[in-house]
Amino acid sequence: MTGTVYLVGAGPGAPDLLTLRAARLLERADVLFHDALVHPGTLALAKRAEKIAVGKRCGRHSTAQRFINKRLIDAARRHTTIVRLKGGDPMLFGRASEEIAALEAAEIRYEIVPGVTAALAASAEMGISLTQRGLARSVAFATPRIGHGAGPSNWATAIAAADTGAIYMGAGQAREIADALRAAGVPTSTPIALVENASLAHSRSFVITLEELPELASEAFTGPVVMLIGAQFAVAAAAAGGRELQIHSPASQRPLATASK
Amino acid sequence: MTGTVYLVGAGPGAPDLLTLRAARLLERADVLFHDALVHPGTLALAKRAEKIAVGKRCGRHSTAQRFINKRLIDAARRHTTIVRLKGGDPMLFGRASEEIAALEAAEIRYEIVPGVTAALAASAEMGISLTQRGLARSVAFATPRIGHGAGPSNWATAIAAADTGAIYMGAGQAREIADALRAAGVPTSTPIALVENASLAHSRSFVITLEELPELASEAFTGPVVMLIGAQFAVAAAAAGGRELQIHSPASQRPLATASK
Repeated sequence: MTGTVYLVGAGPGAPDLLTLRAARLLERADVLFHDALVHPGTLALAKRAEKIAVGKRCGRHSTAQRFINKRLIDAARRHTTIVRLKGGDPMLFGRASEEIAALEAAEIRYEIVPGVTAALAASAEMGISLTQRGLARSVAFATPRIGHGAGPSNWATAIAAADTGAIYMGAGQAREIADALRAAGVPTSTPIALVENASLAHSRSFVITLEELPELASEAFTGPVVMLIGAQFAVAAAAAGGRELQIHSPASQRPLATASK
Repeated sequence: MTGTVYLVGAGPGAPDLLTLRAARLLERADVLFHDALVHPGTLALAKRAEKIAVGKRCGRHSTAQRFINKRLIDAARRHTTIVRLKGGDPMLFGRASEEIAALEAAEIRYEIVPGVTAALAASAEMGISLTQRGLARSVAFATPRIGHGAGPSNWATAIAAADTGAIYMGAGQAREIADALRAAGVPTSTPIALVENASLAHSRSFVITLEELPELASEAFTGPVVMLIGAQFAVAAAAAGGRELQIHSPASQRPLATASK
């Protein structure tokens, strides 16, 4: 007899942006494997679980994926409810496919619980929709991060072809991203909104243009950053006078904050 | 004194895929404006609210957006907590931008609460990740639906340029979608997974190829359909012998079901 492994999206950060299903699974989990960036308030819901950090944090101190797979399988052979909690959604930049393949090969039952992905929280925080009726009807989500042994990617072409773009895990590569987007034909005047720690009390937002993006290479980001690209973000920049931006944050109920470079 | 309007994502359908924040807001809402497709179990959380259906259902019987905007503003002038509940996420094909613009013009306070978008639930249900390490690093979300007065869109180009595509609100336009994707250079052998009513007990899944997509024009879909496009969906088709597909559905705890055309 083996247990079930639940690959669960933890959402963008704020503990109350977890789904009801995820919260209930955490409450009855025997073992919880979680990414480094999952909020302590979210982990606290797993009252009875043995908690094991296996997380990746910008590529540093990461537990090898193969080792995570093995631990999930071992846990499923000893326990009933195993939760693998991943930042955002498991199926969008969550490396779920490798864990699914390992679980299927080991004939372990699994279920996926979707979550709120970071770009949606960033868009909510800015109050600017990724889609705009009649103007933005396609949105590309991409990451410039490359796995070991992976070949070149068309990620910048995908961003350029869509009306709106969302770049994940690009904080440390501002210069390379700017070069790739320019090469893919994105005009240098295109507005880019950067949201760090979307949905959390200490989130920061910037609105710049593609031309200014390389300047961010020197910016010290400590949390996850989402870059949103599209004409609609010019409104935020213009409304707030340059790079200043009002952000809405129901999580913290803080007064309207301004973030500037 | 005016109240606050919360533009809230209801998630893909299953009531337990609502976020904790959304559930708490529903519980204290004075007035609830909701789309037609929101699950009765989700609406039931709004115990004390006056409930008003303003939803669009495949374009039929829809309340004009301008009238919805006016009702939101009127409600904010009479009540404290107004929830505008939208299927999926408000900022991705949710027409939030029009309501935000109206609320800002009327100086009504608002907050956005993100939700789980349908493509992530569809991906979870199939057990196949939208991104695949080293293989699929970009995902385009698009809709072929056109607003009144909107010009032609590059939505098919955006889907073709990304490694993985997700098409929303395309159920009634299978033939037109197939033509547009072929014209944009998507090979006719490309696998397409269709998930109707993702996350609900009565969901259905199909795995076909782009070549077979026009045949679906005669299929009667009654719920929302997401089309997922990408090489990774061939695995599902091959593994299950043609068009049959095993789907995982933690919502209903039903045995592994097979759906075939």
